[in-house]
Amino acid sequence: MWTWTELLADVYPQFLDWCERDTGTRPSLAAAAGKSELEAFPRAPEYVRTPGFFRTLPVMPDSREILAALNQRYELFIVSSATEYPQSLPEKQAWLGEHFPFISWRQMVFCGSKRIVSGDIMIDDHFKNLDFFPGQTLLFTQPHNQLAPAGRHTRVHTWSDIARLLG
Amino acid sequence: MWTWTELLADVYPQFLDWCERDTGTRPSLAAAAGKSELEAFPRAPEYVRTPGFFRTLPVMPDSREILAALNQRYELFIVSSATEYPQSLPEKQAWLGEHFPFISWRQMVFCGSKRIVSGDIMIDDHFKNLDFFPGQTLLFTQPHNQLAPAGRHTRVHTWSDIARLLG
Repeated sequence: MWTWTELLADVYPQFLDWCERDTGTRPSLAAAAGKSELEAFPRAPEYVRTPGFFRTLPVMPDSREILAALNQRYELFIVSSATEYPQSLPEKQAWLGEHFPFISWRQMVFCGSKRIVSGDIMIDDHFKNLDFFPGQTLLFTQPHNQLAPAGRHTRVHTWSDIARLLG
Repeated sequence: MWTWTELLADVYPQFLDWCERDTGTRPSLAAAAGKSELEAFPRAPEYVRTPGFFRTLPVMPDSREILAALNQRYELFIVSSATEYPQSLPEKQAWLGEHFPFISWRQMVFCGSKRIVSGDIMIDDHFKNLDFFPGQTLLFTQPHNQLAPAGRHTRVHTWSDIARLLG
């Protein structure tokens, strides 16, 4: 069992691009380390409510090929926090259909809280999701979590790390 | 933990109305007993893909008042099979927002398979969902299931039945 935003789709380049577009200055990605996205990008609350934001996110490097292989070996679900921004629901499903066509609608979950999902393995970038999950937990490194101790979770920095652990 | 379609929203009156609109003849609800919706309403596959179908469904009698009360006593989630029809995603969320404004986005789950959700109680009208759920299971009577033995599930015919059991 797996999760979507910031694992398959990379929100940081989009935040950097949109900030640069709107302010004329590209923020430093390094400066986002240890900060929530809202702290790092003050206009993030507006961006994530803007039609098109989620539909045009870039794909995380190596995620497509590695997820396709894992999809052959595991019962896989893509679980995405989405209902806070209702416009993101059809955008995320269309995005998955474009970039991950091997993932069927049966494998998609769009929710508000991930506390309701069960499974054996969760890969996520947020402690608020991993900490409640009783199974194996992989913490995917993103700037907002990169300074925090992983605790009981296994930190992975890239999709290649995931492939080495689970492939 | 709970489910949406056919528990909060009543699809049968909508099928009857749309069939009557398109054919000039109102089907008999009694004739739908024991049949899947697709068997009972041959144009159902087209209707459930039509924009507006889910947004305009009538509310199941008594569901609003009883769910509001149960929402005070239980950690409640609305789990809806939705990703098969992507246009239904924002429609279902908007519908919930209009008719059940006390349900927050944190309590909503839109999925393809309900096998991934966990909880203590599931109320649903489909055996395919209830049969995989390890907790307490309530089978909500709908024409498609009304002729089947409830098996290990507890059959409830109305929201008042649910309130008596769980209220």
